Amino acid sequence: MTIAGNMIIGQELVKGSKKAIYGINPATGENLEPAYLGGSAQEVERACALADQAFDVYRETDLETRAKFLGQIAANLAANGPAIIERAGLESGLPKARLEGELGRTMNQLKLFAEEVRAGRWLGVKIDTAIPERTPLPRSDLRLRHIPLGPVAVFGASNFPLAFSVAGGDTASALAAGCPVVVKGHSAHPGTSELVGKAIQAAVKSSGLPEGTFSLLFGSGADIGSALVADSRIKAVGFTGSRSGGVALMKIAAERAEPIPVYAEMSSINPVYLLPEALKNRAESIATGFVNSMLMGSGQFCTNPGLLIVKEAPELDGFVRKVVDLVRAANPTTMLTPGIHQAFESGVEKLSGNANVDLLAQAQGSSGPNQCRARLFSTSAQAFLKDHALRDEVFGSSSLIIRCKTDEEILELTRSLEGQLTATVLMDQADNTAFVKKLLSILERKVGRILFNGYPTGVEVCHAMVHGGPFPATSDSRTTSVGTEAIWRFLRPICYQDFPSDLLPEALKDQSPVPKLVNGK
Amino acid sequence: MTIAGNMIIGQELVKGSKKAIYGINPATGENLEPAYLGGSAQEVERACALADQAFDVYRETDLETRAKFLGQIAANLAANGPAIIERAGLESGLPKARLEGELGRTMNQLKLFAEEVRAGRWLGVKIDTAIPERTPLPRSDLRLRHIPLGPVAVFGASNFPLAFSVAGGDTASALAAGCPVVVKGHSAHPGTSELVGKAIQAAVKSSGLPEGTFSLLFGSGADIGSALVADSRIKAVGFTGSRSGGVALMKIAAERAEPIPVYAEMSSINPVYLLPEALKNRAESIATGFVNSMLMGSGQFCTNPGLLIVKEAPELDGFVRKVVDLVRAANPTTMLTPGIHQAFESGVEKLSGNANVDLLAQAQGSSGPNQCRARLFSTSAQAFLKDHALRDEVFGSSSLIIRCKTDEEILELTRSLEGQLTATVLMDQADNTAFVKKLLSILERKVGRILFNGYPTGVEVCHAMVHGGPFPATSDSRTTSVGTEAIWRFLRPICYQDFPSDLLPEALKDQSPVPKLVNGK
Repeated sequence: MTIAGNMIIGQELVKGSKKAIYGINPATGENLEPAYLGGSAQEVERACALADQAFDVYRETDLETRAKFLGQIAANLAANGPAIIERAGLESGLPKARLEGELGRTMNQLKLFAEEVRAGRWLGVKIDTAIPERTPLPRSDLRLRHIPLGPVAVFGASNFPLAFSVAGGDTASALAAGCPVVVKGHSAHPGTSELVGKAIQAAVKSSGLPEGTFSLLFGSGADIGSALVADSRIKAVGFTGSRSGGVALMKIAAERAEPIPVYAEMSSINPVYLLPEALKNRAESIATGFVNSMLMGSGQFCTNPGLLIVKEAPELDGFVRKVVDLVRAANPTTMLTPGIHQAFESGVEKLSGNANVDLLAQAQGSSGPNQCRARLFSTSAQAFLKDHALRDEVFGSSSLIIRCKTDEEILELTRSLEGQLTATVLMDQADNTAFVKKLLSILERKVGRILFNGYPTGVEVCHAMVHGGPFPATSDSRTTSVGTEAIWRFLRPICYQDFPSDLLPEALKDQSPVPKLVNGK
Repeated sequence: MTIAGNMIIGQELVKGSKKAIYGINPATGENLEPAYLGGSAQEVERACALADQAFDVYRETDLETRAKFLGQIAANLAANGPAIIERAGLESGLPKARLEGELGRTMNQLKLFAEEVRAGRWLGVKIDTAIPERTPLPRSDLRLRHIPLGPVAVFGASNFPLAFSVAGGDTASALAAGCPVVVKGHSAHPGTSELVGKAIQAAVKSSGLPEGTFSLLFGSGADIGSALVADSRIKAVGFTGSRSGGVALMKIAAERAEPIPVYAEMSSINPVYLLPEALKNRAESIATGFVNSMLMGSGQFCTNPGLLIVKEAPELDGFVRKVVDLVRAANPTTMLTPGIHQAFESGVEKLSGNANVDLLAQAQGSSGPNQCRARLFSTSAQAFLKDHALRDEVFGSSSLIIRCKTDEEILELTRSLEGQLTATVLMDQADNTAFVKKLLSILERKVGRILFNGYPTGVEVCHAMVHGGPFPATSDSRTTSVGTEAIWRFLRPICYQDFPSDLLPEALKDQSPVPKLVNGK
């Protein structure tokens, strides 16, 4: 597989005709060859038409065929791992070890969805058998299965060029559900996207699937993305990115003749609550754990801990000094793109300029381009409550310590938060459980995941994971974008009443081995 | 329980201050006492504040308490059955036998949801146990359950004053999920709503639940409804009604600071496909079955068969004559409201005036007010394909026979349809299965339920039912508003990571008896 500046439309490689996009090496600021000419309405039309054509065949692939296809994508990624990791490193500035881990995660995610497809729980089969003798009216034979929504538009994210991009969680779960996928590749890593896209394209071919099962488009600006979401053949959208980007897609989707669901994972500041006994007993290790989480990947994680909420205590100043020392000692790290770096700088400048916020520490500087100098800020609960600007996500290694006077202040502050992906509670056995229960009761209404004595970065891909949460963490709190539950985003129920058995879908036939609920049992 | 013209806010009975609403006896056109003064922003505020206060307690009621509460509502309805049925008959013009059946259905629906609550499947518990020895990183203990979204606004429908109104499917499923409910009562049956609301209010009290678990508001115009959907404490909306009404609520919900899901069940013309062999062999019984379905309840069903799609055949004229005779012989029936009657008349007039549509038959007339004279129309597939106005739902007993020349024309016509609640196939064994498979493949993309050799009216309340479908049948095809699956509309997943076991919700503790998936098994 080679990098040639192509979009992928079904089994074809296509050069665009619009403004060129270049990957940029953020460590040097230099453009990376080749140019990716942006797609036009014509390519959107082609990709959507092919996806629509592919849908009826792809949605009815048997479980084994579909599972093997997902496994084949993983195998193709493995076979091209070194080239993918090399290019992703150039385009993202992320270290090799991180990208190796991320590629492994991406492959494991595909394999997990392959197993999920085989298990057949996603079909959600329910059968209520006929009761012909019932009075006053007999009951029909009713059989429910879930079917995929239709072609899905996926927007790759910049911060995980593998795990949340072309073959990432949205693509894996949509393909697992039986939806063809049209990816709008992120302009920050077009070469990586092309390589990964070709791995999927090859798997489509070798699996004998219709070519429209997968396409990959590029385009600068919002034109391609908007056209994709507005296309009547697209039936759902997966997106990971900024709040403004997600909200824009939600608006387009809501204004269509047929509105469609948008699963946008957007903005979260992930509060961390440090309780008095934990502060007293584990200041050192918590300071280290917190700063490691905050610095990880230049803080370019959706689950980066942006708030540390703690009550005044004799030990607090000592703890803060430890955090300050660790942040000051941190080396600068390369951020993903010039745009992200600029937004980070502008975010931390705004905080620095806020009269009610103290800049406690900044990390080591560097003369190189796009370097993240981590920042640590502090404010009071009262200032935070009054100033909504302090709730804005600063994407990158920036955290704000909120010093609270009372437990009640902590609860009030928590009530005032918007929706979050995560909240973290750091507590010891001797901490006040009654208070924690009150806190949890509020947090449950605000977040998708609550952690104890850990740090929010690091999202396990498994069955019980929720990477979601109330708006603006996501556009749809009823779902998750990580883990096997993500497959439900792309399914809907359909009921078959009194069907002749030869016309029933396989999963609904009496002898089908898939898990089922029969007459409520 | 008495009818006194009150709204219900928690445990209080409240008189409104705005324009009076009167139930109208549609059979006489007369206003029914008492007056229901409309609520204001103040009552919306009160009801929402109480619902929000009730939420934390109500959402954590144990399964048995919540199930018993639902059962108690059913018992209170039974105890007040005669008064409810009498008033509903006056306000809706529906016959007593129908209302008795509907009350039974409403109670059974509550009992089914009580069983569903007890079964605990709705918690969707998934547990991935810790793997501390895993390298390079250990796995945390991760536990997922579903929690309710928050207070839900329910809009009662006019056409089922019991089963889709104050204690109907939306209320039952939202309460089952753990959501407090604020109902905007339908202005067509305020007395019925008050009686049913008091049955719920009494059950809230005797179950020891927080009073805000249930409120009932009235208001003319759209003010109360809009204010309710816009209130930040409301987290989801259930609605059954017109397309314009549903779309208006979707817009308000999408434009909130925190957008929320709207489950609107709106508009469907429910195509019925009559295949050649069935036409040849069963013309008589199909004509009878079809006309019965079309006439049932003056056609005021979401699943009323608005289209009959059939290929030209020697037997077709004879079949149509039978249908015409049955429609002509039909007696007029009282419609639910003057507004619905006017809309029906305007809908059938539009069809009558369409140059490409033939009026084949109309039912007997009557001098009384608000009488439905059923209408039967006919057109060609080509005319239907060209004229989008022919796709508009005419709410009432009106059906359009579409005469097609070829199988391909039938498929093309089907592809051109909007989303539907149902589609029905009437076929015999000798009919062309290959064609039916093609038809089904298109229909699966358009509808929520497909029936064989039956009629779409009559929606079983069970586990496998889907009363839903792509827009504009509903605002959210991923759900159903009838049957136990409806509970999922009001739930979202939340993950608990590395929780101390004493802080875990009961359902997630190791010893919890609820159904669960542990490490994918």
